[in-house]
Amino acid sequence: MNKAEIIAKIRIKKSFLCIGLDTDIKRIPSFLLEYEDPVFEFNKRIIDATKDLCVAYKPNIAFYEAMGVNGWKSLEKTIKYIPKNIFTIADAKRGDIGNTSKKYAETFFSTYSFDAITVAPYMGLDSVMPFLEYSNKWTIILGLTSNKGSSSFQNLNLENGGQLYKEVITSSSKWGSHDNTMYVIGATQAKDLKEIRKLIPNHFLLIPGIGAQGGNLDNVIKNGLNNDVGILVNSSRGIIYAGNDAQFASKARDAASKIQIKMAEYL
Amino acid sequence: MNKAEIIAKIRIKKSFLCIGLDTDIKRIPSFLLEYEDPVFEFNKRIIDATKDLCVAYKPNIAFYEAMGVNGWKSLEKTIKYIPKNIFTIADAKRGDIGNTSKKYAETFFSTYSFDAITVAPYMGLDSVMPFLEYSNKWTIILGLTSNKGSSSFQNLNLENGGQLYKEVITSSSKWGSHDNTMYVIGATQAKDLKEIRKLIPNHFLLIPGIGAQGGNLDNVIKNGLNNDVGILVNSSRGIIYAGNDAQFASKARDAASKIQIKMAEYL
Repeated sequence: MNKAEIIAKIRIKKSFLCIGLDTDIKRIPSFLLEYEDPVFEFNKRIIDATKDLCVAYKPNIAFYEAMGVNGWKSLEKTIKYIPKNIFTIADAKRGDIGNTSKKYAETFFSTYSFDAITVAPYMGLDSVMPFLEYSNKWTIILGLTSNKGSSSFQNLNLENGGQLYKEVITSSSKWGSHDNTMYVIGATQAKDLKEIRKLIPNHFLLIPGIGAQGGNLDNVIKNGLNNDVGILVNSSRGIIYAGNDAQFASKARDAASKIQIKMAEYL
Repeated sequence: MNKAEIIAKIRIKKSFLCIGLDTDIKRIPSFLLEYEDPVFEFNKRIIDATKDLCVAYKPNIAFYEAMGVNGWKSLEKTIKYIPKNIFTIADAKRGDIGNTSKKYAETFFSTYSFDAITVAPYMGLDSVMPFLEYSNKWTIILGLTSNKGSSSFQNLNLENGGQLYKEVITSSSKWGSHDNTMYVIGATQAKDLKEIRKLIPNHFLLIPGIGAQGGNLDNVIKNGLNNDVGILVNSSRGIIYAGNDAQFASKARDAASKIQIKMAEYL
């Protein structure tokens, strides 16, 4: 899916909501455990209930991996079930030497046909390039993350001025372009969004951290939007675990709808 | 496996060799493709041929992931096949917000029973802690990696002196201890090993990059050894792809043996 297509979907749906399918078998309604594939059953119902309200789904791969082979089977079914006109992000935070990153790119772009993958930048240029070499796919580089630990290193001041995360964003934005690269910027870091927008005015930002992690949607929108909208705001637990009974899917829809309505006001 | 046990194995085998099982189905001898699980068949023969020469095996997860469910099945069989007295490292370079890193730790320490996992440090303290919380398991943090891209960010000079990778090593060495934390330091960075040893005199270092990546074993040994030996030197492609015919396993053994003999001289 190219940039113009993403923007068009956002305008049509009046939504830049991404729903995180961080499906933990220990947290889904217990009646689903009777199904052959409870995780897929859960995802299917969440997707059915929310697909008109969001423009992207983002399964966090850790939750599937932890279940071994069965988890990967659930992931595969989930990806196939998501309608083709919805953007799919493998939240995998991969990155390795070139020879190996190539394999990770193959995994998520070819074996599993995701539109995008999140990538960790610590190993630098040749760890990111293999992802950028796929046409019509997106590499979403960690910029400034939503967790407390982001301050451990991302905010370190550099000798030549600025902080590490700014250098990561500025340098890596030249490896690809705003047509194939996005950045993860945590909603909990909304105060820094204005500065980040100056560095990369045209890139899409994937913004996790509203809801369970405490980020504020209004601040994110005020500081993050650009002329192309330019942001995908993710909520995972706040939506998918809004309910925990037979009505979980409609409760998830309600939670997603509240966010989408606010988004529509700004579009 | 605790530190004393690792050191004891090294002294008994006169080897600190780790063999990287980066098994790519496109690179293994073609006659193996007739087996039901060619990747496992390849690994099994490599393990049989080299298990007395090395103290650790390190499958790089990317190569298994890229094959989907079948790859994870091959990985599971491989892990079960490795003798229990050999240290196993999941080269996965994972790391995410705490809630998610917990799932990655579960994947590799519990679902797949590895002794150790490699972890990317960019997301900081709470992305690493869930791995450190497992007793008798090891977290191997990326310090200074073997690839060219390591210079993109790892060598950046910080305002308060030193380079990013030194700050990563120094800070994160306090999160755990030298009894549960190791560092990835590329063999191609051997000139920096002396300095790194000053920062973390007692930590084990996992050193990839000899062989295909060009690192020099003598330099690594001279600059990296400490009183506990303190290094695991990894070779992947240089050993497992030493041959590509019916004798590939004995050729792998020869390649491993050459390295082990040199290691024995220093022990």
